[in-house]
Parts: sequence; structure tokens; C-alpha cells
Amino acid sequence: MRLAVIPGDGIGPEVVAEGLKVLGEVAPDVETTHYDLGAARWQRTGELLPDTVLDELRGHDAILLGAVGDPSVPSGILERGLLLKLRFELDHHVNLRPAKLYDGVTSPLAAPGDIDMLCIREGTEGPYVGNGGVLRRDTAHEVATEVSLNTAFGVERVVRYAFERAVARPRKHLTLIHKTNVLTHAGSLWSRTVEEVAAEFPDITVAYQHVDAAAMFFVTDPSRYDVIVTDNLFGDIVTDIAAAVTGGIGLAASGNLDASGTNPSMFEPVHGSAPDIAGQGKADPTATVLSVGLLLDHLGRSEQARKVNAAVAFDLSTRDRAQPIRTSDVGDRLAALASG
Amino acid sequence: MRLAVIPGDGIGPEVVAEGLKVLGEVAPDVETTHYDLGAARWQRTGELLPDTVLDELRGHDAILLGAVGDPSVPSGILERGLLLKLRFELDHHVNLRPAKLYDGVTSPLAAPGDIDMLCIREGTEGPYVGNGGVLRRDTAHEVATEVSLNTAFGVERVVRYAFERAVARPRKHLTLIHKTNVLTHAGSLWSRTVEEVAAEFPDITVAYQHVDAAAMFFVTDPSRYDVIVTDNLFGDIVTDIAAAVTGGIGLAASGNLDASGTNPSMFEPVHGSAPDIAGQGKADPTATVLSVGLLLDHLGRSEQARKVNAAVAFDLSTRDRAQPIRTSDVGDRLAALASG
Ligand SMILES: CC(C)[C@H](C(=O)O)[C@@H](O)C(=O)O
Ligand SMILES: CC(C)[C@H](C(=O)O)[C@@H](O)C(=O)O
Repeated sequence: MRLAVIPGDGIGPEVVAEGLKVLGEVAPDVETTHYDLGAARWQRTGELLPDTVLDELRGHDAILLGAVGDPSVPSGILERGLLLKLRFELDHHVNLRPAKLYDGVTSPLAAPGDIDMLCIREGTEGPYVGNGGVLRRDTAHEVATEVSLNTAFGVERVVRYAFERAVARPRKHLTLIHKTNVLTHAGSLWSRTVEEVAAEFPDITVAYQHVDAAAMFFVTDPSRYDVIVTDNLFGDIVTDIAAAVTGGIGLAASGNLDASGTNPSMFEPVHGSAPDIAGQGKADPTATVLSVGLLLDHLGRSEQARKVNAAVAFDLSTRDRAQPIRTSDVGDRLAALASG
Repeated sequence: MRLAVIPGDGIGPEVVAEGLKVLGEVAPDVETTHYDLGAARWQRTGELLPDTVLDELRGHDAILLGAVGDPSVPSGILERGLLLKLRFELDHHVNLRPAKLYDGVTSPLAAPGDIDMLCIREGTEGPYVGNGGVLRRDTAHEVATEVSLNTAFGVERVVRYAFERAVARPRKHLTLIHKTNVLTHAGSLWSRTVEEVAAEFPDITVAYQHVDAAAMFFVTDPSRYDVIVTDNLFGDIVTDIAAAVTGGIGLAASGNLDASGTNPSMFEPVHGSAPDIAGQGKADPTATVLSVGLLLDHLGRSEQARKVNAAVAFDLSTRDRAQPIRTSDVGDRLAALASG
């Protein structure tokens, strides 16, 4: 397995080191190449994602990314020029975000129930396309626009992926989240597509919710969900609620998949670079390790993935929460458990 | 006071009747005119909001709306043609949504803290403008767009309103919620506007959060918020999370304000028409009564508003929650308390 590693900024390098530690235990054949991308490189050279690097990345089986972002970089630069550029250039149309409440993990909800959902967020369209502009900037007549682009091609492939995942799960339930009553054009495309694809999957029960109602039910009744499919921006928001109710982004893993297999998929913890705790060895690497689990699963190494996930589940159920997190201790424990 | 009343669909008429009962107790000078708008009228006549009705509505001091929506009407028709048309035609640029956890109300959060926030959602711009379209519908090459329009004029007036509300509150804190790292054009306009207006309000501390992070903190730490200002779509989503953590949309009130006073403002409970429980006398009218409180406050009748709010606070703190809600009983209790 040829793995490209982008440790990135802040706590990125710390959590990635632990992710690789665990990966090395279960997949000794992994060959890693590290890429220096992120705030530091931009500060030093002005470069975000040179074409040559992008080409090299394409030659790998998968990418593991820590986090990018630093307060010294103006908002939007690294996001648009690096993170989103990777997702768009590598056609990561499936942004996979499981949210499971593990035994031993405390939810902020009084009665969370048995939360186990798989959010599938579209990754290459919607309001994220960067199509917008500004007229008469810095005047009283300024107008700023943002355009959400949605295509039958783009919606259909992610909806189909979601149905395929739903079929493989015991509850076989899929919820579309959108705002069809206001965003009527995009909403209609999403609804019609779900209806059409649903006809090919008679075993799946399908529900629809407006994003505002869903945001509420994620808090009041999150265990009702199984597979969720939604647009890029709604997915950004609801997956953070899902993370919150299942113990926080310290545990939230994600995969950015090119489900066609043409480009390498990219796996990253949902948390950011957390500059306030960087370099102190106290970041929780669990989300990165779970992202490694998604990576292995995506590459068809389901037995290795199972070992990683089981290690995390066991560790979470037995962790001494009176002790502060030590990044490398967590990694050591998970590596030992996964290898056993 | 000349009040236009739009009971609407489903539980709308039931909760509005109780709102008017309470209003009559504290403001005996109120004169109401009822307008038949909503699903039933549309089914019967095809009319949503005739211009003549809109003109009549403009002649009132305020509007009280129950709820519109019915499963028999295709998604988007009543929303775009009636509810949003009212908000846009009457220039309701401030969508005011307080979220307070009242004594006696159970939050779904294990440790909710002292939640008392005032969400101010922009109401006439953003992705709600209805600017979008579809190309090659029902083909494999379909493209659907939604355009978010944001103007200096529109953003500045709602931001200014938010600062004015923040000044009048003890904590004097304002949080802008947006997604400036992705929606860079609109985000920049919002950020710059907040920065500029902030200079006129040196007493206010200002924070910024991305909408995904805010959605998480609304669950993990909602008591950190005081006044929030945000765009139309983000406001739709986060105010429902705020409602969820403060006991549900059964208690969530809202005002759609033309803060300039040119057009009548409109007050409505955030819950919808709830067709599943309509006509059974079991809808909670509390959100409507709290909306009446916002209405009185907006018309400068602060003593009357105080009475209504105090009645609700007392009733919520003493309600026997073993008993099912009886719509008219709740209204009777609140009317008696408010008049006392
Ligand atoms: C950093 C940002 C661009 C990104 C996004 O909005 O997708 C992040 O919030 C995420 O969810 O991965
Ligand atoms: C019904 C719908 C159009 C409306 C909105 O999106 O604004 C509702 O969700 C609300 O929040 O008042």
C-alpha cells in the first residue's frame, strides 16, 4: 500500500504519527511518503498545492491528512487553496462521516439512545464550488453572491453510493436532508434523484427531512437515523451536530472518497488543527485512528479495518477518563490492541 | 392596536385562538381582522397571497400568524408563495428568535446550563431570495442552481439591529455565525460589516464562529451565547438547534420585523402546522403566546409584554407534566396569569 501522508498544521502531525503507528501494526506492507503542505509551507514559500505535488499524490493508493489551518493565515486561503482543492481535484464526491456513540463515551445528551449513523455528504458540488463574486466592494452598494451548483451527474453518484451503503446495513434506512421547500431548484433535483434511485433499492426505506428539522432531531432523537445523504453545506453542519452528540469531534473520523477509484481517497479527522493545544502532546488521536479504519475498509482490507475499529471500541470502553489524554499513550494502547 | 391575524393551517387556528385570548387580557384595545390564507384557500381558489390582501395587511400595526403548510400541497408552494412572500414583501429583514431555557422545562442536554440567547437571523437575503434555476431538467445533464444574494445594505441593517439589541442586554456579547472560510465572498461582506459596526459599539464583545462549529457548541455549550447574528439559511438551522436544546419548537417564538417600522412586523411560532395533531386540541400554544409577547414588545408595549412573558415563565415552572397538554387549558391559565 502506497500511502501519501499530509500531517499539516497544529496537532495534525501529532495525531497522524499515532494513526501511522496503529496502521503499521495491522498493515506492515504500508509505504508512506510525507508531504509538507499547510500553513508553514504557505508562509515560507507562498505555495498551497503545487501541481507537481498534486500529480504525485495521484500516484498513491490513499492519502492520510492530519489538519490544515493556522490563525496566521487569512480565513479561506488554506481551505480553498489546499483542503477543498484536494477534495475537488481528486473528485472526492463522497464525504463519508460515520457517527457512532461508543460504549464508555459520554454524550452531552441526557438520553442519547443507540446512535449509529453514517452521514454521506456530497463533496464536489453545492455551495462549496467557489462560484460567487463581489460587486462594488467596500461601498454601500456592495453585492456579494455565492452560487450553489448541483448536477444530475453529481447528485446521482453520491445518492447511489448512499443506497449501496444502506443496503449493507441492518436497518436499511436512508434519510435525505435538504431544504426543498426553499431551495426549490436544487431541492427538486435531490428529491427526484433519491426517488429514482430508490426504485432500484426496494429493500431500503426512505425518509426526507428539511435541514432545520433534522438539526433538531439530531439533538432530540439521533438514534432514529441510519444512513443520511445530503448536500455539501448541509452535510458540513449536520455532521458536526452528529459528532457533538456522539462525544465530540475528538472522535469524528471522515473519508473523502472518489468512489469510482480513479483518484486516491483521502482520510482525515474532522477536528481542525487546534493551534491552542498544538505541540503539547495532549490531542486525542482517536479520530485519526478511526480515519485509518475507514481507509483500510475503503481499500478492501476489511479484516485490518476491523482490528483497528475493535481496538478503538475497546479502548474507549475502558479508558480512565480521570486521566488527561496523552497523545502517544493513546496511540501506543491502540497499536497494541490492534496488533493483538 | 390593529392586528391582522392569519391562523393558517393545521394547528395554526388552535394556537392562534389562545394567543389572542392572552393578548385580549393584557391589551383590551386590540382590534383583529382575520385573513384566510394557507393550504385550504389555495386548494379552493388557487390563491396564495393576493395583492389586495397584501395591501390590506400593510394597513395593520402587526400580524399574528399561526402556521402554514399541509401535506396535500407540494413542497415550496406555500413557503415561497405565502410565508416567504410575506417576509420579503413586508421587508422583514430581522428574524428575531430568542431561545431561553425556562425554569421547569427539560432540555435534552444533560447539563444545559443557563441558556438565554437572542438569535437574529437575516430575513430578506441570502439563499432565500429564490434566485436560481434549472437547466435540462429530467435529463442526465440537469444542472440546478441556487444563488445567495447578500448586499451591504441588507447585511448592515441587520447587523446594526443585532448590536443595538446586544447593548441592551447584560452580557453585551455578540457572535457572528457564517462560513467565511468557504463562502468567501458573502463571508467577507458579513465579517467586514460586523467589524465596521462594532467600532460604533465599543462596549460589545464580538466573536465569530463558523456555522459547523456553532452547531456543535449549541449542543455542547449553549450558555456561552448572548446575541447571535447570522444569515437567513444558517439562521434557519441554528435557531432550530437552539429551540431543541431549550425544550423544543413547542416553545420557540419568533418575530419577523421590519425594523424601520415601514411595514407591519409579523409574529409566529416556529413550529409548523403539525397536521398529525391538528384539530385534537392538544397543541401547545405557548410558542404563540411568547410570540404575542414579542409583538407587544415590538409595539413598545413593554409592560404588557412583561405580563405575558411572566405568565409563561410562571406556568412553565409549575406545569404538571404528567398531564397531556390541552390547548385551551394552557391558554386559559396563561390568560388568567397575564391579567392578574
Ligand atoms: C475546513 C472546512 C473547509 C471544512 C469544510 O467546511 O468542509 C471542515 O469544516 C470540514 O467539515 O471538513
Ligand atoms: C417554512 C420555512 C420556509 C421556514 C424557513 O425556512 O424560514 C421555517 O423553517 C422557519 O424557520 O420559519
